[in-house]
Amino acid sequence: MKDNRAIRLYVKQKLEPGSLIELPDKTSHYLCNVMRCRTGSVISCFNPVDGEFDCRIAAADKKKTLVEVGSRKRLPERDNNLWLLFAPLKKDKTDFVIEKAVELGVVKIIPVLTARTNADKVKTERFAAQAVEAAEQCGRLSVPEIAQPVDLGSLLQSWEPGRLLFFMDERRTGTEALTAFGEAAGRPAALLVGPEGGFSDDEAAALNRHPWVKNISLGPRILRAETAAAAGLAVWQAVAGDWRRDGEK
Amino acid sequence: MKDNRAIRLYVKQKLEPGSLIELPDKTSHYLCNVMRCRTGSVISCFNPVDGEFDCRIAAADKKKTLVEVGSRKRLPERDNNLWLLFAPLKKDKTDFVIEKAVELGVVKIIPVLTARTNADKVKTERFAAQAVEAAEQCGRLSVPEIAQPVDLGSLLQSWEPGRLLFFMDERRTGTEALTAFGEAAGRPAALLVGPEGGFSDDEAAALNRHPWVKNISLGPRILRAETAAAAGLAVWQAVAGDWRRDGEK
Repeated sequence: MKDNRAIRLYVKQKLEPGSLIELPDKTSHYLCNVMRCRTGSVISCFNPVDGEFDCRIAAADKKKTLVEVGSRKRLPERDNNLWLLFAPLKKDKTDFVIEKAVELGVVKIIPVLTARTNADKVKTERFAAQAVEAAEQCGRLSVPEIAQPVDLGSLLQSWEPGRLLFFMDERRTGTEALTAFGEAAGRPAALLVGPEGGFSDDEAAALNRHPWVKNISLGPRILRAETAAAAGLAVWQAVAGDWRRDGEK
Repeated sequence: MKDNRAIRLYVKQKLEPGSLIELPDKTSHYLCNVMRCRTGSVISCFNPVDGEFDCRIAAADKKKTLVEVGSRKRLPERDNNLWLLFAPLKKDKTDFVIEKAVELGVVKIIPVLTARTNADKVKTERFAAQAVEAAEQCGRLSVPEIAQPVDLGSLLQSWEPGRLLFFMDERRTGTEALTAFGEAAGRPAALLVGPEGGFSDDEAAALNRHPWVKNISLGPRILRAETAAAAGLAVWQAVAGDWRRDGEK
């Protein structure tokens, strides 16, 4: 019995010991042709509702793979209630932002269209596939939701009550991140990163009009948009999120 | 007179108002052919010793560009004493690490060879050129030093007394980053990121043998090496570095 438990697959189906699950074509191809798993190989399957399980490949051919769910090795976990809102960038930078947002534990990613957003079509299906892959690789049990793109004005108008929106302002007029995130620990939050070139003055003014929007600073250097996203999320997790150990919050 | 002050060039020569500076060939080409600057255009030149100055292009032809140094607009600044030590990765990921390390304010970058380091030749000249470019773009006055590659054992044997070494351990046995960095504020520090696949057990043991090595954790998810580098540096700057405002330390 080949041990391929380092292979983690996100599955949508319910996972319970003894049940049989059919994997989608693409996953089958990946398992059998890329990773060379065979009948009897043991892999890991997970979803956020049931947790993570050892699963044995019960049948595998070119078209279809069936796995039998074995014992549970991880219970479901609670994610921090953190969203990332970002203005889509060029392809490779957007890919980077999605991957880092998953590794850094966000539960929802919203592409936001701003005055200076300079991106091709926003491919949310592509983002969703990338998010699954990143979740499989970084050991998460959940995959962030990818929302449809929304323009900044509509986003602000329909904002969820009670959620703080941290807006990373390259003008460096905001509160330092450590302080702002520290004060917000335990509250639902979202980080908003502007496009290359930043927010327009009108957009900055519109943002600052709302009491639930907090203007934060990420230091004296000008960070690229994708750096600001990764850096802001890391500091949030370290200060207010799940990088803190239980009982130390 | 064309205003190209957004173009920032790092120059090695001494900068003082009224002096003439000859730019290297490559920079000349970039200015004249890529950015289409002409005689009379005003650009910005900087170095860490003299600060940043408006400079007027006094003569430009295909081979040579002379700039006349004008008034100083930024005084020299003190960098935080933070180093990044990383195991070289594949080309695009190494590029990413260098760029982010510059944006996130390190003063020295040391490529470290470990048991599981899996990289092609370590091209420190290339790293140095990338560091200059990143410094020009992120508004820094300084460019981090790029050290020659060193193996982990030699690095530990010749470690600079008084400098803390934070070792980002994917086993998650370390102190949480917020606490560890907070306790070390004001001290010279270095962050060490291992290769894909992490440090070997022997390496982790060798690291943990030294009292100036601190094992830190970056949360419950497995971060890719380049994510760990950017995330660790961001948290350090936010907690112990120059993202904190003067007087609030």
